[in-house]
Amino acid sequence: MSFMFKDRIGLSIFGSSHGEMVGATLDGIPAGFQINRSEIALWMDRRAPGRSTITTQRKEDDAVDFISGLQDGVTDGGSITLMIKNKDSIKKHYDEIMNNPRPGHGDLSLFFKYGPYRNYSGGGFLSGRMTAPLVAAGALAMQMLAPTGIKITSYIDSMGPIHMKKQSFYEQAEVYQYQSRMPDPESDAKAIELIRELQSAGDSTGATIRTVARGIPEGLGEPFFDSVESIISHLAFSIPGVKGIEFGSGFSLATMRGSEANDPFNITDGRVHTQNNRNGGVLGGMTYGDPIEFRAVMKPTSSIRTDQETINLETMKPSHVSVLGRHDPCIAIRAVPVFSCVTALAILDLYLRRQSGYKGNFEKNASYGKNKRD
Amino acid sequence: MSFMFKDRIGLSIFGSSHGEMVGATLDGIPAGFQINRSEIALWMDRRAPGRSTITTQRKEDDAVDFISGLQDGVTDGGSITLMIKNKDSIKKHYDEIMNNPRPGHGDLSLFFKYGPYRNYSGGGFLSGRMTAPLVAAGALAMQMLAPTGIKITSYIDSMGPIHMKKQSFYEQAEVYQYQSRMPDPESDAKAIELIRELQSAGDSTGATIRTVARGIPEGLGEPFFDSVESIISHLAFSIPGVKGIEFGSGFSLATMRGSEANDPFNITDGRVHTQNNRNGGVLGGMTYGDPIEFRAVMKPTSSIRTDQETINLETMKPSHVSVLGRHDPCIAIRAVPVFSCVTALAILDLYLRRQSGYKGNFEKNASYGKNKRD
Amino acid sequence: MSFMFKDRIGLSIFGSSHGEMVGATLDGIPAGFQINRSEIALWMDRRAPGRSTITTQRKEDDAVDFISGLQDGVTDGGSITLMIKNKDSIKKHYDEIMNNPRPGHGDLSLFFKYGPYRNYSGGGFLSGRMTAPLVAAGALAMQMLAPTGIKITSYIDSMGPIHMKKQSFYEQAEVYQYQSRMPDPESDAKAIELIRELQSAGDSTGATIRTVARGIPEGLGEPFFDSVESIISHLAFSIPGVKGIEFGSGFSLATMRGSEANDPFNITDGRVHTQNNRNGGVLGGMTYGDPIEFRAVMKPTSSIRTDQETINLETMKPSHVSVLGRHDPCIAIRAVPVFSCVTALAILDLYLRRQSGYKGNFEKNASYGKNKRD
Amino acid sequence: MSFMFKDRIGLSIFGSSHGEMVGATLDGIPAGFQINRSEIALWMDRRAPGRSTITTQRKEDDAVDFISGLQDGVTDGGSITLMIKNKDSIKKHYDEIMNNPRPGHGDLSLFFKYGPYRNYSGGGFLSGRMTAPLVAAGALAMQMLAPTGIKITSYIDSMGPIHMKKQSFYEQAEVYQYQSRMPDPESDAKAIELIRELQSAGDSTGATIRTVARGIPEGLGEPFFDSVESIISHLAFSIPGVKGIEFGSGFSLATMRGSEANDPFNITDGRVHTQNNRNGGVLGGMTYGDPIEFRAVMKPTSSIRTDQETINLETMKPSHVSVLGRHDPCIAIRAVPVFSCVTALAILDLYLRRQSGYKGNFEKNASYGKNKRD
Repeated sequence: MSFMFKDRIGLSIFGSSHGEMVGATLDGIPAGFQINRSEIALWMDRRAPGRSTITTQRKEDDAVDFISGLQDGVTDGGSITLMIKNKDSIKKHYDEIMNNPRPGHGDLSLFFKYGPYRNYSGGGFLSGRMTAPLVAAGALAMQMLAPTGIKITSYIDSMGPIHMKKQSFYEQAEVYQYQSRMPDPESDAKAIELIRELQSAGDSTGATIRTVARGIPEGLGEPFFDSVESIISHLAFSIPGVKGIEFGSGFSLATMRGSEANDPFNITDGRVHTQNNRNGGVLGGMTYGDPIEFRAVMKPTSSIRTDQETINLETMKPSHVSVLGRHDPCIAIRAVPVFSCVTALAILDLYLRRQSGYKGNFEKNASYGKNKRD
Repeated sequence: MSFMFKDRIGLSIFGSSHGEMVGATLDGIPAGFQINRSEIALWMDRRAPGRSTITTQRKEDDAVDFISGLQDGVTDGGSITLMIKNKDSIKKHYDEIMNNPRPGHGDLSLFFKYGPYRNYSGGGFLSGRMTAPLVAAGALAMQMLAPTGIKITSYIDSMGPIHMKKQSFYEQAEVYQYQSRMPDPESDAKAIELIRELQSAGDSTGATIRTVARGIPEGLGEPFFDSVESIISHLAFSIPGVKGIEFGSGFSLATMRGSEANDPFNITDGRVHTQNNRNGGVLGGMTYGDPIEFRAVMKPTSSIRTDQETINLETMKPSHVSVLGRHDPCIAIRAVPVFSCVTALAILDLYLRRQSGYKGNFEKNASYGKNKRD
Repeated sequence: MSFMFKDRIGLSIFGSSHGEMVGATLDGIPAGFQINRSEIALWMDRRAPGRSTITTQRKEDDAVDFISGLQDGVTDGGSITLMIKNKDSIKKHYDEIMNNPRPGHGDLSLFFKYGPYRNYSGGGFLSGRMTAPLVAAGALAMQMLAPTGIKITSYIDSMGPIHMKKQSFYEQAEVYQYQSRMPDPESDAKAIELIRELQSAGDSTGATIRTVARGIPEGLGEPFFDSVESIISHLAFSIPGVKGIEFGSGFSLATMRGSEANDPFNITDGRVHTQNNRNGGVLGGMTYGDPIEFRAVMKPTSSIRTDQETINLETMKPSHVSVLGRHDPCIAIRAVPVFSCVTALAILDLYLRRQSGYKGNFEKNASYGKNKRD
Repeated sequence: MSFMFKDRIGLSIFGSSHGEMVGATLDGIPAGFQINRSEIALWMDRRAPGRSTITTQRKEDDAVDFISGLQDGVTDGGSITLMIKNKDSIKKHYDEIMNNPRPGHGDLSLFFKYGPYRNYSGGGFLSGRMTAPLVAAGALAMQMLAPTGIKITSYIDSMGPIHMKKQSFYEQAEVYQYQSRMPDPESDAKAIELIRELQSAGDSTGATIRTVARGIPEGLGEPFFDSVESIISHLAFSIPGVKGIEFGSGFSLATMRGSEANDPFNITDGRVHTQNNRNGGVLGGMTYGDPIEFRAVMKPTSSIRTDQETINLETMKPSHVSVLGRHDPCIAIRAVPVFSCVTALAILDLYLRRQSGYKGNFEKNASYGKNKRD
């Protein structure tokens, strides 16, 4: 089983790129939350294809229909199922791919796992389109976290040879003003130029995405198997194309000494914090009050127009493939909101679980009524 | 809940650094496997403290007692519980730490999550000692995988400024001939020198660890939430001190173009494979036959003798801490077998789950007897 | 979380009685199974309202739409989402109930748990309508089990004072020839007469349902927490209205002696079996080859026209309620196929899990291709 | 996998009847609870063998050792592992059983599932001895529930032909004054007489056990798959020998009409309750304030001295078996505390999960410290 993520909250996704729709079921959401649909639509737009000349030209309105779990826009304690229709899929581009798997794509894995039964059209259930319901579910999680003061943002930190000058918490609204999701004018201009070049070359580029979550309460994350890093990375590696993740200073910790890496604790306005957030807000797998911060790498879109060597699955002889269809020169651009949303889901899960940690909460456990009878 | 990892196999760990023992329960293991105890002991030795002058001087024999699940050394289908006694713990070194949390360590998180009830002695259940039962369980998983031809190895790829010249599959026996777990004489010599220097300076260093698993059957990993990368990273981030993970070419994919990153498929002796294994053997979250390959970063040991700034939790004023006790200058050295063992657990889990993938297996589902009655 | 049942297979249901639709997602189903839609439609008809003068007159065609997981009617390894539209719901009948909870119904629990956010219309997500997706999913499970020789059937064993003369394995086709699902002409006639009487009295009746599954392979069920009885009862008590379950001789074992209850083993045609199946085919929580057999009790439909005492939730004073709307005089009749389907889901789950039990299966673990590379 | 029960709390049991020990790991328990060890010892005594002339003469002191999760008797947030040594096991009595499975026992299932690898000595992991760690874990759960006002009690409702005159909530202390656990002098006397007779006849008897939990908060239980009945029955059917369970009026609802069964709501002292608790305190799968009440049936001990027909597993020919060893004439007597403890575990699990139900609780989610940083 693999389309369900289940701990405190349960998330199940379904559909495929060229089927009728994609969707998700979110279970374990408390009753009584007013959902803001236009904010969900905004998130969907941030991820949607066809919104910019530098992303894929597939057109999808990505409207989210809520099938259950809401009454007059308020959660009712039931499972929330949402659906997003597929409108603009073109199957014919996939005939060639059936027997000539795209290098860098999951086509070959699908063949070896499912053989003749595989769903290959548009990447089937391996498609980036599966992130649409993930964004819808995550946008909902983000709304639930908002009153607690948690704010999550993501942006492109580097694209090919272009790097953001400054790592920071950029407000979401700011990030999405830039077509490239690199929130400074100079990087954005360079990135757009790079993408135009890739578009004409029929090629693509990798990138890194940074995510920062502020206003994090202490005590999120469970001590061993369900560390903050475990839960976030589990979800992050579900996003197609992600090949690495690092928290805080990440891989550069390999060349530091403890005296440099340890990051002394300071106190400001009565709150303890580190000087440099080298651990990305997570120590011993748990939060202690600093922002959660991580960076992930997305490989270049594997579907490119350029001719590539592959093998033919019928003849098992060398072959070639050139991918038609409409693809993103830098898939990371559209993955930016996916990272924010997946982080919201992970944090909501850990937030709901935190109650187990401390006795003080145990007796606060409540429901609407009080009808206990002796 | 957090001390259980549960999918096809269930793994629950328990104990703490300064308690009576640490241990694990492994559930879901088929009956009929002959366990080789001396091989498990070998793995325990590889991780154990006090085995070398370049690691901590705490002495533990780390003998593994099997409490259940075996009869005459053969698995009986019941849950396997194993225990490892703690023999050489010195509590007094931890008095200072109670109110002066170590920078870079989980002490502060424990305080904010559990307050007065926290188990801080020796790091409590956040201690690296919790990896002892993980190694025992993983060594057992490795034995079960052996007949399928799967071989897993890990080694130190870089330590501070020292880098292995060649990335490769180094046989386990080879790796453990080198005290530093850097399997070439030159790197090993430099690493030992570095550690000697750190020992006298009361400091520590970060490192990266590479893990390679060969003989991987196609079709491991489930398509969305339970990708190979998700499951391995979930477990890897449970190991104290890990701050990043990358599969295949990982973060360097950020600066590649698709035409370079895509890694063409070739065919040799009737088997399809990539030219450069840039995706670490995983495409679309699933294996297709190439080796699984990943690299993780471990931060420098946070417990160092060097004086560090912290805050006092009683006064909430700036304070200092210098960690006595016996610690590893490079904790990654002892983490090398932990990575191999955790990878074995992840692969065993995915291997047992794979049956769901394809109808062909469904009817082979069998037990010892055949007694179906109409 | 509660709308997901997740072990080897994952099942998530959604929707509510008066929403747009109800549905289910089934995860973990192997690729390559050809689905027979007309057989699923047949099962839906067996449960559907409005098919007989002795059940509710609500009219629903209960057509099942498959949204994902199938290609040309063959499972593709993805999650299977199915939907059933609600067409004939009448909300106005529920205005009175909002503040005057029906005795014997979950209205009061919903109020105390979710307060103003509860979904009460048509019983919301507590409605018997939630069993429609359960039947669709279970019918699919039954098709997968069919080639293994497992056959499942259920029938009404007693309704009010009327009892079946003979307990047996009645073929499904036989059972559904009888409007009352009591598969003998005499009981059926009496049952129909009883229901006519209840219809004019505005009352309802309880019943017991017997389920028998034949062709059961030995070794299903896991030894402790996941016994066959645990898994079946967990699912059975999810069906609205079920208040008891017993396996084999069940409660009558309370008055037996061991020498009578123990049920000697015999051997016929090389197969071991018991003389009387007193344990319902389950010993030590596991099957050994005899049919699985259990009986469950469903309470009388709580929604009745007869005037009943209740309390008003606004005034918290005594009140009265008489339930309009279209209800079943004996809800157990429509629950008969639900029991068969839920049993199929439980058995499929245990069947897929059985592989863990015995080493012999371990190496047969296969996928479509063979591409392992050394 | 089957020795783990995992939802909000995680419970894993291990060991076997004739191994070195039995034990359990309990995960997800909040930090800060003071554990009363003598109360746990009291519960162990209530279940222990050799305490009375009417139960088995095997002598076990059943002392509980806590290995982790406690500091100075207070929970520390880590997983709680506890162990109970086996001291008085006699293996030789089991030689005959190896090839001559006891009718009514799981021996045959073990053989067909695990074949030569089965653990048959003393029933292996199917032994009633596995309920010792269940009692220890449940006694701990009961202590956590105590401050919320929840009280749980169980007693023998009927034994063979002897029935308790009155169903009621009998205080635990009262129940355990009676050797037979039938808390009225007349029934107790008859039950003791029955057991003496069975002891000399080498036979055994079945019984029913009633469990009542008072002080139940409303809103426990989740609406569909995780109803109160589902969770309790899942655990109850893990207890060896249980073959049926019914909530409230249970099977007698089959012969009632709705107008009788519906059980009107009344209001007393501002609290809503039913007149007769016909639904055992659970409506729609959730509690609303009335006591949870259920009755289970335990079959007669299958290990009896009386000669019984069986088959020989080597020759596959008819055979005989007479069970030596020390067994309980009525195993239900020692199962009485097991039912209370299992109910405590189920309720604690549901209690910890209840937070998801209602928004009001969401923001109360807390840990010890407050260190959130913007």
